[in-house]
Amino acid sequence: MSKAITARSQDYSQWYNDLVLKAELADYSAVRGCMVIKPYGFALWENMRDALDKMFKDTGHVNAYFPLFVPKSLFEAEEKNAEGFAKECAIVTHYRLKADPTQKGKLIVDPEAKLEEELVVRPTSEAIIWNTYKNWIQSYRDLPILVNQWANVVRWEMRTRLFLRTAEFLWQEGHTAHATKEEALVETKKMLDVYADFVENWMAVPVIKGVKTANERFAGAEDTYCIEALMQDGKALQAGTSHFLGQNFAKAFDVKFSDKENKLDYVWATSWGVSTRLIGALVMAHSDDEGLILPPKIAPLQVVIVPIYKGEEQKAAIDAKVNEIVVQLKKAGIRVKYDDSDQARPGWKFAEYEMKGVPLRLALGARDLEQGVVELARRDTREKKSMPLEGITEVILAQLDAIQKNLFDRARQYRDEHITPANNWEEFVNLLDTKGGFIAAHWDGTPETEEAIKEKTKATIRCIPLDTAPEQGVCVLTGKPSTQRVLFARAY
Amino acid sequence: MSKAITARSQDYSQWYNDLVLKAELADYSAVRGCMVIKPYGFALWENMRDALDKMFKDTGHVNAYFPLFVPKSLFEAEEKNAEGFAKECAIVTHYRLKADPTQKGKLIVDPEAKLEEELVVRPTSEAIIWNTYKNWIQSYRDLPILVNQWANVVRWEMRTRLFLRTAEFLWQEGHTAHATKEEALVETKKMLDVYADFVENWMAVPVIKGVKTANERFAGAEDTYCIEALMQDGKALQAGTSHFLGQNFAKAFDVKFSDKENKLDYVWATSWGVSTRLIGALVMAHSDDEGLILPPKIAPLQVVIVPIYKGEEQKAAIDAKVNEIVVQLKKAGIRVKYDDSDQARPGWKFAEYEMKGVPLRLALGARDLEQGVVELARRDTREKKSMPLEGITEVILAQLDAIQKNLFDRARQYRDEHITPANNWEEFVNLLDTKGGFIAAHWDGTPETEEAIKEKTKATIRCIPLDTAPEQGVCVLTGKPSTQRVLFARAY
Repeated sequence: MSKAITARSQDYSQWYNDLVLKAELADYSAVRGCMVIKPYGFALWENMRDALDKMFKDTGHVNAYFPLFVPKSLFEAEEKNAEGFAKECAIVTHYRLKADPTQKGKLIVDPEAKLEEELVVRPTSEAIIWNTYKNWIQSYRDLPILVNQWANVVRWEMRTRLFLRTAEFLWQEGHTAHATKEEALVETKKMLDVYADFVENWMAVPVIKGVKTANERFAGAEDTYCIEALMQDGKALQAGTSHFLGQNFAKAFDVKFSDKENKLDYVWATSWGVSTRLIGALVMAHSDDEGLILPPKIAPLQVVIVPIYKGEEQKAAIDAKVNEIVVQLKKAGIRVKYDDSDQARPGWKFAEYEMKGVPLRLALGARDLEQGVVELARRDTREKKSMPLEGITEVILAQLDAIQKNLFDRARQYRDEHITPANNWEEFVNLLDTKGGFIAAHWDGTPETEEAIKEKTKATIRCIPLDTAPEQGVCVLTGKPSTQRVLFARAY
Repeated sequence: MSKAITARSQDYSQWYNDLVLKAELADYSAVRGCMVIKPYGFALWENMRDALDKMFKDTGHVNAYFPLFVPKSLFEAEEKNAEGFAKECAIVTHYRLKADPTQKGKLIVDPEAKLEEELVVRPTSEAIIWNTYKNWIQSYRDLPILVNQWANVVRWEMRTRLFLRTAEFLWQEGHTAHATKEEALVETKKMLDVYADFVENWMAVPVIKGVKTANERFAGAEDTYCIEALMQDGKALQAGTSHFLGQNFAKAFDVKFSDKENKLDYVWATSWGVSTRLIGALVMAHSDDEGLILPPKIAPLQVVIVPIYKGEEQKAAIDAKVNEIVVQLKKAGIRVKYDDSDQARPGWKFAEYEMKGVPLRLALGARDLEQGVVELARRDTREKKSMPLEGITEVILAQLDAIQKNLFDRARQYRDEHITPANNWEEFVNLLDTKGGFIAAHWDGTPETEEAIKEKTKATIRCIPLDTAPEQGVCVLTGKPSTQRVLFARAY
């Protein structure tokens, strides 16, 4: 197969693009900044979505669906939120096309079909949802509302990258309403934990839980909690956020409830989301120069079996055995494919499934069959070994578990090795330019200093980690006193 | 509960609206013609979607995702398709809002952020998808492509109704590409069969399979196959369509493939879709003046258990028994809820779950417990009977099956009784105005006559049924010769 991709060492960014295209996760489209998610990429997203959806439901949430469009007057109601998203909104202004009188077969926007009020294509749904919750909430008995939505959203980004930053993307957005501040805070943190659980235990990507600084906060939130992951090139990636919205949206949309004492108060809110961006994180956390490496728990295909034979007779004998194995594996819940297509040689198939990151490959030849063995090849370590066919299902289940664990362990080791303290400006800049990763440094707590550091180095405060111990120190830039280290990094 | 709804006999249309709102399937929104699908309605949609999705995958299809927006130049490429949808498109013309200099806190569309080319919010995705397939298809080896997409689409309808006709709706759209006409035709009919199977065996709504006349064909299709259902008010509802697109889109987007002999030819296409409109059909096919009636196979909740007690001691004894039952039922795969909330009386709960269409209700009181029995109430027939607690899981499974079957049987009986032949114009008009339903009548085969009948009576040809025998006759309107009866009806 002629599918070689750029090496990471040569050009990490190009490696990523090559990989996404050649592993057939996604494709460019005719619409600026929008991508096509190809069937293989979408199967991966379905596995991620289904696992997350179950976690949401297990924590008491239900799904619903709200309109794609937000009337401009609702969009602008929560001022900070509106300000944060106004610069990157797709706006619907008309509702009809008509024949172009000057060019046969062409269409023009019908100027007579101008909307009285423009519609914003949702960049996020707080506005339309809180405008709806107003009608759903009268009393404490109507609370909490624990709703999630799987949807497409549009943010008109200037520089886009497949999965990482696209004008349209798929995501889920939870929007909850509570009677008390405490309950809303518990919800915000609970969903951060759900995200961390998912990203670590399904995607095998270790994360740091933290809280964002004011500069990096979601527009309209009181506090933004986040999980931050580290990519192989030493850049950080925000993998999910959970916002404590206070009473901001309740006030903007006048959503009050009467409590048990019949006193009126504004409702407390949270929102939280993860998106198809996670696929970008997954690719960059694990994959190598041969292609994707996928964690077994979410891989569309966990095992592929390739026959190696000469002539029909050998093929028939292998087929018979493999069909037995496939039945056993499927019974054990394993996603398996037997690729006995005669359109490609085994070597080509091997490379193809390596490109696609299938965790385990089995190759079975005539001699293996005689000896009652099969060759297992792990995608993560590229180790091959011959194993007895007898009891192969248990071996495969154990191998899949081992791969899942190994991916997490090696990503965690890399991540842990790339959290480095810096105690002065020179160290800080030097670490950023040589080693990369997270830099644990003191900061004086002001937005101005954060902004100055960003301008000088392109590094941002990824988060104030939840589990950091207080420590006296001085800001790496200004030398002013600080009580805690925060994590800086250059980021996607 | 104060949730009485308008009786069907009084105002069928109002009954429908009341029911959708009060059963909490959907709500109006702040966006013209767009609805909010509430959690209960969305849980129903999830069950429908999951069942359909499995059927698509079992027939070899995979999911993918294509952009929400279609650049105008692509939209207009297939002329008939463009003409069909141009009048009802939401158009994005700008990509930014900015602060209104005249009003603090308000936003206006930034005139400097005008798109060079307008984007159409997809009313259907043939254009964007075939423009993509162009890059995916070179050779017969790339065919067939069997892709489905679950997505939101927008059609700017002037008169909207919850679920039945909304400006934005959720649907799935299959888009397949084939090397031969024959294969595309087989696919078109196969997916029609899948739809019929789903609507009949999951939704318990009988359908008639047929083909549309040229007037009612999908814009850009060579042939549109459909399934037509009958609502309780005698109006028909198109429940799903499967289009044979010929080579129209391949020609519009220049999608050619080389066959085994290395000869270039245009690719053959199909597309097929069903939408959240099906929920409207479901409501109108089965429900009554007390509320929804849902088929067990797709009901979000199949069984609800309500305790009837005085005092804590009785409650505790009932709880203990019900908890056992719930475990058993869940183990049997039944979606069950034990509603032991003390916020409402049993009578209120009974009415609430009737409104929501829960197929089976169990009521368990202290005396029942002593006697080892429980009261079962069927939502479809409203029959109640006392049954032994011993072996109740099997009884419930059998009852759920019986309800599923009964709903289909009675809908089919109603439907069959409402297919009436009309042999002249007077009969035709009379039947439409009195009995309603499908009218099997001869038609001269011309679009003009079809249009004239529509103008006179508001009845349209729902389909030319696939299973009708040829029969000589004369057109009910023009008296011209005809070789087959077609089905007319007023329709949603």
